[in-house]
Amino acid sequence: MVVLGSTVTMAEATVAKTDPLIDAAKKAGIAPIPAEKAALIKLIDNPKNPITDAKVELGKKLYFDPRLSKSNLISCNTCHNLATGGVDGVSTAIGHHWTANPHHLNSPTVYNAVFMSRQFWDGRSPDLEDQAQGPMQAAPEMAITKEMAVERISSMPAYVKAFKDVYGEDKITLKKIADTIGAFERTLVTPSPFDKFLQGDTNALTDGQKEGLKLFIDKGCANCHTGVGIGGGMQPFPVAKPYKYADIGDFKGDKNGMVKTPTLRNITETAPYFHNGAVWSLAKAIKIMGETQLGTELSDKEVASIKTFLTSLTGEKPKIEYPQLPAVTEKTPKPVTK
Amino acid sequence: MVVLGSTVTMAEATVAKTDPLIDAAKKAGIAPIPAEKAALIKLIDNPKNPITDAKVELGKKLYFDPRLSKSNLISCNTCHNLATGGVDGVSTAIGHHWTANPHHLNSPTVYNAVFMSRQFWDGRSPDLEDQAQGPMQAAPEMAITKEMAVERISSMPAYVKAFKDVYGEDKITLKKIADTIGAFERTLVTPSPFDKFLQGDTNALTDGQKEGLKLFIDKGCANCHTGVGIGGGMQPFPVAKPYKYADIGDFKGDKNGMVKTPTLRNITETAPYFHNGAVWSLAKAIKIMGETQLGTELSDKEVASIKTFLTSLTGEKPKIEYPQLPAVTEKTPKPVTK
Repeated sequence: MVVLGSTVTMAEATVAKTDPLIDAAKKAGIAPIPAEKAALIKLIDNPKNPITDAKVELGKKLYFDPRLSKSNLISCNTCHNLATGGVDGVSTAIGHHWTANPHHLNSPTVYNAVFMSRQFWDGRSPDLEDQAQGPMQAAPEMAITKEMAVERISSMPAYVKAFKDVYGEDKITLKKIADTIGAFERTLVTPSPFDKFLQGDTNALTDGQKEGLKLFIDKGCANCHTGVGIGGGMQPFPVAKPYKYADIGDFKGDKNGMVKTPTLRNITETAPYFHNGAVWSLAKAIKIMGETQLGTELSDKEVASIKTFLTSLTGEKPKIEYPQLPAVTEKTPKPVTK
Repeated sequence: MVVLGSTVTMAEATVAKTDPLIDAAKKAGIAPIPAEKAALIKLIDNPKNPITDAKVELGKKLYFDPRLSKSNLISCNTCHNLATGGVDGVSTAIGHHWTANPHHLNSPTVYNAVFMSRQFWDGRSPDLEDQAQGPMQAAPEMAITKEMAVERISSMPAYVKAFKDVYGEDKITLKKIADTIGAFERTLVTPSPFDKFLQGDTNALTDGQKEGLKLFIDKGCANCHTGVGIGGGMQPFPVAKPYKYADIGDFKGDKNGMVKTPTLRNITETAPYFHNGAVWSLAKAIKIMGETQLGTELSDKEVASIKTFLTSLTGEKPKIEYPQLPAVTEKTPKPVTK
């Protein structure tokens, strides 16, 4: 089993105390990112794609490698930028040849995406390994073909060696590329003050944050924003009132109209909000959620209180050394920027 | 004076030995990146913008910050990617709204750019601090206005504090933004086996690399590719024969037809080559340089030998922790992707 020490900063294990608010949060299904390394690894690992240090390191390189795009200009990190909350800071994702996402969809954060039950806004992908194959090949994103991706990576001897070290064989496939990226993404978890609180450190939240948490539970926010991901399940959207904010595009969720609940972890860093990135103000986003999902008119004071709680979800990011990537060779397929 | 330890990895100081080839290289004006820290800092520092740890750290953040572009999507690192030799791996730089550089110019590497006597292909900028102001504001690059850049950065309290820590005052200007970026870029130097050789470690080069170096000097390559930068001065282009490779565009160099000689450091990592990125093969690039600049028909064997020497210029990159950037606030001017 792997030691994640270099990638994931673990919170110190704390001695559990009892607090009715902790009990209420747990009863609402909210759970912390485990502070204990073995428990965390068990939670984030994929038995079909076990995490190893070598795989995570290779996945990190590929995550940052723009040669996985048709143009040589776009990497996973372009839209899921680890420097800016794991997102791109634009309403609608922009990809190859400056093409906007045709459904006006906003790039969700990659931080803590491992805790989502499904991937993509319509939940069409079961896990990060499967998800990673999508944007690489999508015409409005990285726009590369499976063949070109494999040929590009296979043309660089240092990558061939790294794949051999991880998989015991030379042959590189798009699935292996995506699997290593997925393994890296699984390590992108961000323990926060709220996790310490759930683990019994009752001083980890301010009184204001505790009040906000109570309201968050009482108003029903935790009906959807729950679990370790504080989000990540599939829910009907909208429920109580129409969502009427800006370009909704033609996105209708999955075949049952279900939409993935985004994580609230690091929500202070991931504006703009909602599947179409229509709202830049976190306070406004909270208010809209009350209306459209809970059928509740939250007062400005209640909104402010919930927002104060949400600041406790801003977590510590793993320290990542910016990679040095293998140089292209004369065999490497050339970029196509048209 | 600053300690650069965290950013720049110093080569070990070596005891100088005499070797006629070292003497010949020095006589040709080629000089090593100093192994001794104080000498290096003296060489890379700008008295008008002294390097400090805090300034370099702030400059690193800004270098990676895509909010310095109109769209929120392009940072300095997009075209001068520190993971891929300090370049973007495309022939013609692509910027805002997927606009190609109108003169078909290729992005030069930022690694060792501090050793260039002038910046930009036409040498119109005297130093890195001045240069950094250009691409931010250029319509086909980051396309931001001076006002929006300042307003964006000033809207994020952590940046305001960082500028106050560096400059002793709150007021942020585009010049200060560019100065900090320039300070960071000054630290991006890459000591190589060739530097160790010049410093007297005669075993740092293979026999093949030494033969190539001799040829490099004898054929006249070092007439232009000289100094610590092994390039970086202004030279007529072409000299002996027309340069006739692919889209030359309307680039004519400076008002006297002079073009900046690119560095050969890390040349194995910075394809495609020349001001218009028309040539992907390093061997072909060497052959063309012989023809257009030296009026010499280099044999395939000579080309291969010079190429072998050039591999000794691939240097050790500074270790860079990928930054965590301040989150936008509701005051931050929104991205414009149109």
